[in-house]
Amino acid sequence: MSAMDFPAWMAAQQALVEEALSRWVAADSPAGLGQVMRYAVLGGGKRLRPLLVLATSEAVRGNDAAALRAACATELIHAYSLVHDDLPCMDNDVLRRGKPTVHVQFGEARALLAGDALQALAFELLAPDDATMPPAMQAALCRLLARAVGVRGMAGGQAIDLASVGQRLTEPELCAMHQLKTGALLQASVRMGATCGADVPSKARLALDDYGAAIGLAFQVVDDILDVTADSNALGKTVGKDSAADKPTYVSLLGLQASQALADDLRVRAHAALDGSGMTRLGPLRALADLVVRREN
Amino acid sequence: MSAMDFPAWMAAQQALVEEALSRWVAADSPAGLGQVMRYAVLGGGKRLRPLLVLATSEAVRGNDAAALRAACATELIHAYSLVHDDLPCMDNDVLRRGKPTVHVQFGEARALLAGDALQALAFELLAPDDATMPPAMQAALCRLLARAVGVRGMAGGQAIDLASVGQRLTEPELCAMHQLKTGALLQASVRMGATCGADVPSKARLALDDYGAAIGLAFQVVDDILDVTADSNALGKTVGKDSAADKPTYVSLLGLQASQALADDLRVRAHAALDGSGMTRLGPLRALADLVVRREN
Repeated sequence: MSAMDFPAWMAAQQALVEEALSRWVAADSPAGLGQVMRYAVLGGGKRLRPLLVLATSEAVRGNDAAALRAACATELIHAYSLVHDDLPCMDNDVLRRGKPTVHVQFGEARALLAGDALQALAFELLAPDDATMPPAMQAALCRLLARAVGVRGMAGGQAIDLASVGQRLTEPELCAMHQLKTGALLQASVRMGATCGADVPSKARLALDDYGAAIGLAFQVVDDILDVTADSNALGKTVGKDSAADKPTYVSLLGLQASQALADDLRVRAHAALDGSGMTRLGPLRALADLVVRREN
Repeated sequence: MSAMDFPAWMAAQQALVEEALSRWVAADSPAGLGQVMRYAVLGGGKRLRPLLVLATSEAVRGNDAAALRAACATELIHAYSLVHDDLPCMDNDVLRRGKPTVHVQFGEARALLAGDALQALAFELLAPDDATMPPAMQAALCRLLARAVGVRGMAGGQAIDLASVGQRLTEPELCAMHQLKTGALLQASVRMGATCGADVPSKARLALDDYGAAIGLAFQVVDDILDVTADSNALGKTVGKDSAADKPTYVSLLGLQASQALADDLRVRAHAALDGSGMTRLGPLRALADLVVRREN
């Protein structure tokens, strides 16, 4: 794939994901809960995690229908985490993707339930009762996702984040926190994409793991950079919150310039991992690494 | 099994579940989140859902290791639902199983995260990366659990419950709400137990479904009865809350005596389903139906 083709690839995949999410997060549901879930999920976001699943599945020539389910499952988890993270007892945020957050729009109780239901729906998508994918693939996808979002993944990272407010973390501590809080799901997205393939060589799997680790960390470093450099309009959420809340960030720890250098090092590391993977259809993964580091929101 | 043996069977199963939960909900975890999860899960509760899984697996001569995982998964889901349900934005309850609720003990943010992580752990238990159970069984268990707890199950039922405060529901509406809110997970517990067996005849599966539906509903009817007849000490939680909150209950709709008659009818229906199941090792399931209706907390 030439560099020119990536925007077209991305737009096509985003449209697929959007259509599938709209189908799977149904509006007709008890007491309007589906509407709350749709508000949380549809019509916004870069769909980075789904793009990672789909790009990885393409690299390993995976099962397309399985990859689309896995892609949507990662986005549902991401959406649920944002809904819960925005709640008053957590970050108490009122703006997300340029819209009022879910609890502002629908109340805290429904936001809580919608988040809970989105997590369940993610697992439901991975275990369809049809011939979409073999049971072993379903089980492996559920395993990867469950580990990435639980106490030793995203939820654990959020617990460290909560506990770290006002604390001075070292760079390894900060790195460990982000590895769980955001890195685990990004890395799982790559692994889940790889799981959609059959007989993926272990050399390729290991390379994809390196790739996933690098962009998982890069994503957070860039998030911290954008928290101080972007404006709220471009970002679609409140900026400067983390520094204002006295949360440790890469920028507060390393400074802006060193953080930007770290992000670019990670981009180079991600590319190097792909170069050594022995795979060929790597254009989207390569471009996604660039996108993660060079994004403006 | 004679009626005399049930208390011994139950104590033995409860000990198995307690030991397994204590092992799987590990204390050493990021920022103490495991301790919060353990507080929410261990040392309390009747373990009714696990007992249903284990009793059903025994009836279908299921895989014991798989059944123990499925049993614990249902309990983790139940525990997460209680933690979130007790939060200030939901029922705002301060007492559960005779102890301060999780958010009273650890704060709202950690209670929220612990609940989220318990849901993820439930799915993780069902997809072990070893030879405990075949992948098809893992996938089927994940599917059953995900459907039972999501928008068309427990979370949806809670959304109806929220929306129904101060509303006058008809008996079919009340029944539909409880079928989702508590019935779906109880019924899923029976189905998950059946899934631990190989080649279970469809006659037995259908009978178990009838059994699960009857005790799922009976459980809620008895809950409503206990809300007005029990005292807080026996119940281990605040009584009279539902009636005080102007929530519709079976007692407010049918009256106390008719509610008690309904509960006993459902017990008889559960027994009748077992009688027609063609299975033989039914003692624990039969006794559990009695327990659900005759419990005092």
